[in-house]
Amino acid sequence: MVPLEQAQVSVEDRGFLFGDGVYEVIRAYGGHFFELGAHMRRLQHSAEGARLALGAIAEDLPALMRRLLVQNDLQDTNMYVQYTRGVAHPRAHAFPSEAKPTLLVMPLAIHSLPEGAVNKGVRAISLPDLRWQRCDIKSTMLLPNILAKQQARERGAFEAIFVRDGLVTEGSSTNTFAVFQGILATHSSGPHILGGVTRDAVVRLASTIGVVLREEAFTLEQLCQADEAFLTSTTSEVLPITQVDDRRIGHGRPGPVTLRLREAFLGIARG
Amino acid sequence: MVPLEQAQVSVEDRGFLFGDGVYEVIRAYGGHFFELGAHMRRLQHSAEGARLALGAIAEDLPALMRRLLVQNDLQDTNMYVQYTRGVAHPRAHAFPSEAKPTLLVMPLAIHSLPEGAVNKGVRAISLPDLRWQRCDIKSTMLLPNILAKQQARERGAFEAIFVRDGLVTEGSSTNTFAVFQGILATHSSGPHILGGVTRDAVVRLASTIGVVLREEAFTLEQLCQADEAFLTSTTSEVLPITQVDDRRIGHGRPGPVTLRLREAFLGIARG
Repeated sequence: MVPLEQAQVSVEDRGFLFGDGVYEVIRAYGGHFFELGAHMRRLQHSAEGARLALGAIAEDLPALMRRLLVQNDLQDTNMYVQYTRGVAHPRAHAFPSEAKPTLLVMPLAIHSLPEGAVNKGVRAISLPDLRWQRCDIKSTMLLPNILAKQQARERGAFEAIFVRDGLVTEGSSTNTFAVFQGILATHSSGPHILGGVTRDAVVRLASTIGVVLREEAFTLEQLCQADEAFLTSTTSEVLPITQVDDRRIGHGRPGPVTLRLREAFLGIARG
Repeated sequence: MVPLEQAQVSVEDRGFLFGDGVYEVIRAYGGHFFELGAHMRRLQHSAEGARLALGAIAEDLPALMRRLLVQNDLQDTNMYVQYTRGVAHPRAHAFPSEAKPTLLVMPLAIHSLPEGAVNKGVRAISLPDLRWQRCDIKSTMLLPNILAKQQARERGAFEAIFVRDGLVTEGSSTNTFAVFQGILATHSSGPHILGGVTRDAVVRLASTIGVVLREEAFTLEQLCQADEAFLTSTTSEVLPITQVDDRRIGHGRPGPVTLRLREAFLGIARG
């Protein structure tokens, strides 16, 4: 455990040279990690997809994360976990015969949302989904996500929503939901989206509050004509979208299904 | 300038956290960098694609690379250059308002080819191309390339050749050529392949030795039925492929067009 500004890795770490690593961002509410089990399962899934062996990390990580909370006197924070194939010499694509994986765990301040984001909803832009075909692996290969998020910012939007083969997949760091005549829809799980922990919690919550859900992709045009839309993520929780590109979603304000799901979500997360 | 084992970057370097960087591998023959101008132009292209400003680096890099050759008393080596968006706090996808880019330059030993690779040719396997849609950017997001190369190794092959929408794009760290009835073919430049410096040199050499070239993609089946095939890269130069999956290419030994191109290439590179 070292101060963040002193934490370094070798330039030969495969995380630095190859993007050869996976990660998680886990949120703590009141000193309690939300959906820790789901995050650990997803880390395992990502590691398997990248053919990284987690080994003892899988068991040690929760205690390590808790120690970081305590040492930093944190209650409400994100915890960032990254696991790479480690330092190997000389640089070569194929797996090194011997390399000790690198584990980075650091608290990460929760981004404050733009003013009025929750009450008024946020704006999103649409962009072609240029990412690879294994978006279900939460890998550190995030350049397309970065470029998309930056474009969103420059166009005064909160998020960029990806469209692949005409269908809305997800946002650059969020999942995307829409409501059509009372029915909630989101892209099905699979290689083209990240199985969001908040997404999955919302999918489960829908049935408990009596909302019918279809895990079925919709087009960008359908999204623009939806009654409501929102995005989900560990850091944004459930956040209404009221504009996509230059199109107003529904009545241009957060919809009732969105607000009920947001309330229900915060109830279990913060409660 | 520090010994490689002491060279470190912050864990908050965006190259480590986001794969937010581009790179080059430049080969020196007899103390002279081969096609340095082409590598610098490609670095510029990659940087523009990733919206990274190279700034003064573009001018300073050649001298820096030469200093590393001299200091390490190297004549024949690869030089690795990586440029990332630098250290930024706190972690956030969008570009940081202030960040000093990170530049890594290190000599990289030339991999020795497997025994008999040049004389007998190498084996390749075919795999679906799962990479993103901007493979012309030489970014450090290499997990799909790593996984493919590893599969090749495990199946006793030298390289994995990617197939996207039925067409051969390129290898995991090489470009792919085939000869059909005396005509040389390779995938056209564009977002689905990296514009290889060795590839481009071979394209130019073809006309000087009187070989007709078509920059036109071919299917995996066409590759398997080709008279000859070879791959190109900075480290492999021009290397015959004599087997793809379980199919023998041509007569199962390096073909005459391949060998002429290899000889011509080595003439200009080593000459």
